Amino acid sequence: MNGADHYLYKMMHPKSIAFWGASSNPMAMGSVQLAQLLDLGFEGPVYPMHPRDEIVAGKKAYKHCSELPEVPDLAVLILPTRVVAETLEECGKAGIKSVIIVSAGFGEAGAEGKEQQNKLVGIAKTYGMHFLGPNCIGIVNSHHKLNTTFFPYDAAPGFIGMASQSGSFITQMFVHLEKFGLGFSQGFSVGNEAMIDICDCIEYLSHCPETKVIGVYIEAIRRGRDFFRVAKEASKIKPVVAFYVGGSESGKKAALSHTGALAGPDLLYDGIFKQCGVIRAYSLEELFDYCFTLGTQPLPAGNDTAILTHSGGPGAEAADSCERNGLKLADLSAQTREKLLNYMPHTASISNPIDMTFAKNPEDYTAILPGILLEDPNIQSLFMYLLLPMHRILQTLKNVTPDPVQAQELGRQYIEKQCRRIADLKDKYGKPVVGGSFCTREEPFVRVLQDYGVPVLPSPSRAMKALSALAKYAEFRRAVE
Amino acid sequence: MNGADHYLYKMMHPKSIAFWGASSNPMAMGSVQLAQLLDLGFEGPVYPMHPRDEIVAGKKAYKHCSELPEVPDLAVLILPTRVVAETLEECGKAGIKSVIIVSAGFGEAGAEGKEQQNKLVGIAKTYGMHFLGPNCIGIVNSHHKLNTTFFPYDAAPGFIGMASQSGSFITQMFVHLEKFGLGFSQGFSVGNEAMIDICDCIEYLSHCPETKVIGVYIEAIRRGRDFFRVAKEASKIKPVVAFYVGGSESGKKAALSHTGALAGPDLLYDGIFKQCGVIRAYSLEELFDYCFTLGTQPLPAGNDTAILTHSGGPGAEAADSCERNGLKLADLSAQTREKLLNYMPHTASISNPIDMTFAKNPEDYTAILPGILLEDPNIQSLFMYLLLPMHRILQTLKNVTPDPVQAQELGRQYIEKQCRRIADLKDKYGKPVVGGSFCTREEPFVRVLQDYGVPVLPSPSRAMKALSALAKYAEFRRAVE
Repeated sequence: MNGADHYLYKMMHPKSIAFWGASSNPMAMGSVQLAQLLDLGFEGPVYPMHPRDEIVAGKKAYKHCSELPEVPDLAVLILPTRVVAETLEECGKAGIKSVIIVSAGFGEAGAEGKEQQNKLVGIAKTYGMHFLGPNCIGIVNSHHKLNTTFFPYDAAPGFIGMASQSGSFITQMFVHLEKFGLGFSQGFSVGNEAMIDICDCIEYLSHCPETKVIGVYIEAIRRGRDFFRVAKEASKIKPVVAFYVGGSESGKKAALSHTGALAGPDLLYDGIFKQCGVIRAYSLEELFDYCFTLGTQPLPAGNDTAILTHSGGPGAEAADSCERNGLKLADLSAQTREKLLNYMPHTASISNPIDMTFAKNPEDYTAILPGILLEDPNIQSLFMYLLLPMHRILQTLKNVTPDPVQAQELGRQYIEKQCRRIADLKDKYGKPVVGGSFCTREEPFVRVLQDYGVPVLPSPSRAMKALSALAKYAEFRRAVE
Repeated sequence: MNGADHYLYKMMHPKSIAFWGASSNPMAMGSVQLAQLLDLGFEGPVYPMHPRDEIVAGKKAYKHCSELPEVPDLAVLILPTRVVAETLEECGKAGIKSVIIVSAGFGEAGAEGKEQQNKLVGIAKTYGMHFLGPNCIGIVNSHHKLNTTFFPYDAAPGFIGMASQSGSFITQMFVHLEKFGLGFSQGFSVGNEAMIDICDCIEYLSHCPETKVIGVYIEAIRRGRDFFRVAKEASKIKPVVAFYVGGSESGKKAALSHTGALAGPDLLYDGIFKQCGVIRAYSLEELFDYCFTLGTQPLPAGNDTAILTHSGGPGAEAADSCERNGLKLADLSAQTREKLLNYMPHTASISNPIDMTFAKNPEDYTAILPGILLEDPNIQSLFMYLLLPMHRILQTLKNVTPDPVQAQELGRQYIEKQCRRIADLKDKYGKPVVGGSFCTREEPFVRVLQDYGVPVLPSPSRAMKALSALAKYAEFRRAVE
């Protein structure tokens, strides 16, 4: 498939947009959504559509499509339920092919709403259009400066393609992803899925070059067979991680009242996911921990993992979590043990977890030890516990320079060097390296590592779970290749 | 027990401290630890002890205890292994009763180290002393401005009493706790537990008035019977949450190499914890999520939980997690449903999860709905999904005032009012309320709520797990009372 010919490619890459629902009242939902679109710096023309207001968001507003200077590529409809159908028809007549229907009150709102929704589908088919929704929050394409949702997109352009049955799990994730320096490549809030559903999005995202990993939030799957086929094909190309909440009785109940779709039991879905190579997550945090890791790291040849630490407790947490998540503590080869002996203090442990304790030379922790471990054929992946707080480095640098500005600069360079070494490991050895730290992105070492594409997750156990998800995906790929 | 008479109370509340191991070299481990003690503002005299240096950390240093102007309450020893015994003896002769031995190379370092460690115990007993360690990182008492570790204590004075077999899980948690506005009341790194072990710490902390909940990190329990007795007694007074890593084969291996203690299997420990009322956590994050919740919230009468949300996805995540963790979605009473009808839009769901969707009046979410739910006798605890970002509030306030400073102040007041209402619920209704949000403490509403003692945890599933831990503890308390 040529990605650019896909109708979802066109929806995600409009050159111009007609926008219904924004008005001279800046508090209206539509006005807030339009503001986000303009704030992110969408580069093409945006045409506010309004029956009375002449200026909306500082722009000339249009009453009708016939007045527009061109046929826009995309229409966004944030309108009262009763006028959606006629507006969609207007779009169709004008030749607009992609529409996002934010308005609610359709399939999720009883029999009458369902009928109205079917009417929308009929109109779209008549005019050869595709629409997303209704009852959705819209789309985001960080690489195209496109954000039709009502949340500001603050995160970086990213590599996670997302299809979500909850709008919140698009918009409210902007701030969550930012905590890790991550961002969406493209994100779909699919709403009622009247025409476009998660299967379509997964299929499209599997061919999207900016998307390295696909995240899916599922309450219920409407097309089971198609999901199976599409998810399996996608998983052969890139990882698909799914957070499915409909498997428990309570989740099913919540899903039913939220989107009106009937969810299936856990066991069934676990079986489907496993056969498709889809990695299951049990929370939003897990979903994105996994996406970070699966979207950046090479596939391990197996489950044998080394744990490198300079603190006993975090090493033990990692080891405990390793086994609970189906990984195995690798047996170090005799050669590896011998090499390690030269670099580790006599109080340290030369077994896995490799606990350097207080280092003879702290730089060995990034410069020497990971290499020794990754050269060992018994070791297929590496977890590193990471702690390089700036305040400690600056304390050390007091001996080198009394000038705080120079110390900051030296500290920055030191961190840069350590992080570069860790980031280079995966390419040098072709094995995945995942970090864990209780420090967050405010610490420069976390920020630099994450920006270099090293998953530094907020605890050893979360990192081990992510490594385990990666190993499971690698197993699927080995089985199908 | 009168807490103030306990030897651990005396260790935690010294009026004066003699400090061995700091020197004129600011990079020495001992110097770094002394710096933290002074930085936190310890209010009594601190006497650096050094054989040659006359000034250490800007203070007069002493060569020998006999030169000191008084008998210090506490000695901290960060010395080479070989001189620890003689220094301990010197402390004993001088009448010092509490000692922290940071030095390693004892019980964890083979037969000879074990013998040396026994010698330390012999000396301590001769002089009627108690020492913590060896091979520990020290103690922190945030209410007494006491921090003998080598990490700066940046967190607030807190209510979590901690006993840890990993020093890192004291020091490296300062930064983790800060993320939630939490802090330790008192924290012990117990090291090799030659004289003082986690049982002693739990017993003492159960009587410590600043400690509302006890957190324990366990690799192996050395005194099984005593643990059982002490933990059960403590759990009758306040919650005890334990993160135990020795239950898996890998965790056991890691623990053995870290502290030399032999861990027992999961099933055995699960049984012990359950009978003692100790709540088990499976990661450090869980441990502190649980401590936050168990240390602040009243005990629920049962497992029936209401989920209040304005976003479908987070509500469904909470519902799914609810059941997976042994809670139950409460059935709303007919009366409750009827009351809710007046405040919810027709598109909203009047079943549990209670999803307000787009609110008629957003303030109802804090002012009206939680009260209606908590009045329902079918509902024993409440989860609230929370999202009140400042940027949205400021956007709204543009209509009220053009002055950004005034808008900030109005925004602050608005958040304050909303948060106060949520914080008051637990006392008004005597039922626990836990929040979940993907926003972090940088958002004012998260900070204010956490500072009011409302656990706002980083995701719906983490909040539900914490609520479940609270319900388990409540069950234990009902059984023993």
